[in-house]
Amino acid sequence: MESAIPPHLRCPRTREPRASQDYTPPYPAWVARLKPSVTQLGMGYFGVQYARADQADAAFGTLTTLLQQFASEGGPGHHDLARYVDEAGFITLVAIGYWEDAADLRRWLATPVVAQWWNDPVRTQEGLGHFREIVYPRAANLETLFSTPDRFEGVAVLAEGRSDDIQEHGYWGSARDRLPASQTDALRGSGAPTVANRSGPRVTLHGHDGLALIRSGQEWTETSGHERDLYLQQVEPVLAKGMRFLSHEGAAIGCHLNRYMQHVDTQGHPLEKSFGLSYWRSLEHLERWSESHPTHIAIFGTFMNMVQEMNFNLKLRLYHEVAVAQAGDQLYEYVNCHPCTGMMRGVVAGSFMLGQATAPKGAESD
Amino acid sequence: MESAIPPHLRCPRTREPRASQDYTPPYPAWVARLKPSVTQLGMGYFGVQYARADQADAAFGTLTTLLQQFASEGGPGHHDLARYVDEAGFITLVAIGYWEDAADLRRWLATPVVAQWWNDPVRTQEGLGHFREIVYPRAANLETLFSTPDRFEGVAVLAEGRSDDIQEHGYWGSARDRLPASQTDALRGSGAPTVANRSGPRVTLHGHDGLALIRSGQEWTETSGHERDLYLQQVEPVLAKGMRFLSHEGAAIGCHLNRYMQHVDTQGHPLEKSFGLSYWRSLEHLERWSESHPTHIAIFGTFMNMVQEMNFNLKLRLYHEVAVAQAGDQLYEYVNCHPCTGMMRGVVAGSFMLGQATAPKGAESD
Repeated sequence: MESAIPPHLRCPRTREPRASQDYTPPYPAWVARLKPSVTQLGMGYFGVQYARADQADAAFGTLTTLLQQFASEGGPGHHDLARYVDEAGFITLVAIGYWEDAADLRRWLATPVVAQWWNDPVRTQEGLGHFREIVYPRAANLETLFSTPDRFEGVAVLAEGRSDDIQEHGYWGSARDRLPASQTDALRGSGAPTVANRSGPRVTLHGHDGLALIRSGQEWTETSGHERDLYLQQVEPVLAKGMRFLSHEGAAIGCHLNRYMQHVDTQGHPLEKSFGLSYWRSLEHLERWSESHPTHIAIFGTFMNMVQEMNFNLKLRLYHEVAVAQAGDQLYEYVNCHPCTGMMRGVVAGSFMLGQATAPKGAESD
Repeated sequence: MESAIPPHLRCPRTREPRASQDYTPPYPAWVARLKPSVTQLGMGYFGVQYARADQADAAFGTLTTLLQQFASEGGPGHHDLARYVDEAGFITLVAIGYWEDAADLRRWLATPVVAQWWNDPVRTQEGLGHFREIVYPRAANLETLFSTPDRFEGVAVLAEGRSDDIQEHGYWGSARDRLPASQTDALRGSGAPTVANRSGPRVTLHGHDGLALIRSGQEWTETSGHERDLYLQQVEPVLAKGMRFLSHEGAAIGCHLNRYMQHVDTQGHPLEKSFGLSYWRSLEHLERWSESHPTHIAIFGTFMNMVQEMNFNLKLRLYHEVAVAQAGDQLYEYVNCHPCTGMMRGVVAGSFMLGQATAPKGAESD
C-alpha cells in the first residue's frame, strides 16, 4: 500500500489529511501515475447540440469532423465520444480530448484546421449549437481513482502506469487527501463564472478560482447475471435520479452543471459505460453533496447494497477523475447554444429571451 | 448561527476544521452549553444482567436499589433507566447517571451506601451480573447535538442552556469539528483495554487513550400517522440491523462494545425512546463506520428518505453525545458477569470457560 500522492509531488504538509497514517481501507483501489514531467494537462469537451430528430445526421457529421480534428497534428493523446440529453431537452454529442501538456492543447486549438472551423460564420447558421469547454488541470490539482487495476478511463489513459493499492480512499474527504495540492492548500473556491465576451450567438465565459470538476464513471460491459440485473435495475435508476437532481436543481447547492453521459462508438451506437460530469463552485461543495445529500446517499447506499450482495466480487468497473482549477486555467465557449447550456446557465440565461431555453418539441426527455 | 465550540473553549487552531468558514448547514441543529466552570464531568452506566425470566424480579429489585443510591447524597444531576438484550442473549437493566463534576462522582462512589453495596460479597452470590462503566469526560473532549432546541437528553440535561443553531453539522467529520479539543489535538486512539485486577468473579479493566464513546438516540413519543409508520416500519428495522452488526461484529472495525437500549420508566415499562451506546478504539474508527460502512449508510439513507418524505418537518427527536477519553478517565468493573460483557469481550472472554458465555436457554434474543 502506498500514498495516492505520487512521490515527486509529496511535500511537508501544512494541512493534515483526514485519515490517520494508521488507516487501512476496507478494499483496494488504484490511481493513475502520470510521468513526473507532466505538470499541467489539457482536457476539452467539444459538444454539438441539437433539438430535433431531423438534425441528428447533421450533428453526427459535426462529431465526425471533431474526430478528424482530433486525428490531425497535435490532437489529443486520448479521446472519448459520448451523448446526453440536457436539462432543457437538447440532445448533445461530445468529443472529449485529453492532452498530456496544456501547451499542446493550446497549440492544437490555434491550428488552422481547428481554429478556422470553429470561427467559421457557418457555425452560427447550421441550426446546431456548438461548445467547447476547456480546462487545463495542473498535475498537483488532479486525482484519479479506479476500482480495478487493469484498465483506465479518461485522463488516466495518458498515464505511464499505476500505483500500488493506495491508502487514501474509502472515506469521505479522501478525494481531497489524494490531491497533491491539498498537502498545503485548502483548495477553496471563490468568484463566479463571468461573461468574457459576447458577440451575437458567440459567448465566451471565464471560470473562477477553485472550480472543481468531477468525471465519475462506470462500465458494465463485463457484468452478467445477477450482478448485471442489480446494476441495471437497482443501481442505475438511483444514479440517474441523482444525476437528474444535479442537472436540474444543482445550482442551489453549488453545482454549475451536470451531465449524465453515455459513451458511444464512432458510429454513434451506445457502449455499456457512462459517466457523470459535473462542475462545482468548490471542492467543498462537491464534498458536501457527495457525503450528505439524500440523492447521493441513495446512490451510495444502493451501490453498497450491490457490493455486499455480490460479496465484494464485482465485474462492474468504477472510476473517477477530480480536478480543481484556477480561473486562468478554464475557458468556456458557446456558439448558437441555448442560454442554459453548460456554464452559461447561471450567467447568461437570464438575459436571453426565456422562450429560447424551453424544451424543444419532439426532443427526447431525460 | 454560531460555532458549536463554546466561546470559553475556543483557541487558535493548529488543526483545520473539515468545513470552511463559508459553510452553511442544510438544516438547523443545536448543542448544549455547559456552565463554563465545568471542566470534567462524570458519567456512569450501572448495569444488572440476568439470563432467565425468573430472575426478572430480582434484577428489577437491583435497579430500584441503584435508583435509591442515585437519590442518596451526592447522586447524579440527571439519570436515565434503560434495558437491552446483549449479544450473548442476557437481559440487562441499566441506570445511567450524569454528574457535572468528575470529583462528585468519585466522592459518590466512595460513599458507604454505594461502596458497601458494590463490595458486598452477596453481589457474587445472587445469580445476577453487575457492572459499572465509568467515564469522566473532559468538557473539551465532549460534544452534543440535537435536532430540536426545546428539550435535551443524556449529559446535556446538565447544561445551563443551549447554543444558537450551530455551523458544524450536516457533514461527516462534524462531530470532530464540534469537539473543542480538536482545535489542536488529532484525538488519536492508542493502546487497548487491559485487566487491572481480577479477583474471582470480580474483574476491573482499564481503558486506553483516545477511546471514543457515542450515545446516539431517538424519541418517537410525539410522532403520529405517516411519520410514525415510517420510523417504526422503515427506519427502526434498519437501525436495529446496524446496531446488531456493531454488537456482534463490531470488534473487527474497532468497536469495543455496542448496546441498542430502550428507555424504561421506574416500573420497568418501555418508553418511546431508545439509543445506541458504543465504545470505540478511536474517534477515527467511529468516523469510518459512520460514514462508509454499509450498515450505517443504510441507517443514514433510510433516515434521509424519511426526512424527505416528511418534507423536513419531523416530530421525531434525534440527538447524540460523543466523548473522547484518556485511559485515566475510564474505569470498567464487572461482578459475576459473563465474560463477553462490555469491555471484557475483547480481553477476558478468551480466558474463561467458553461455555459460560453462550446464550442462556430461554433468554430473549435480540
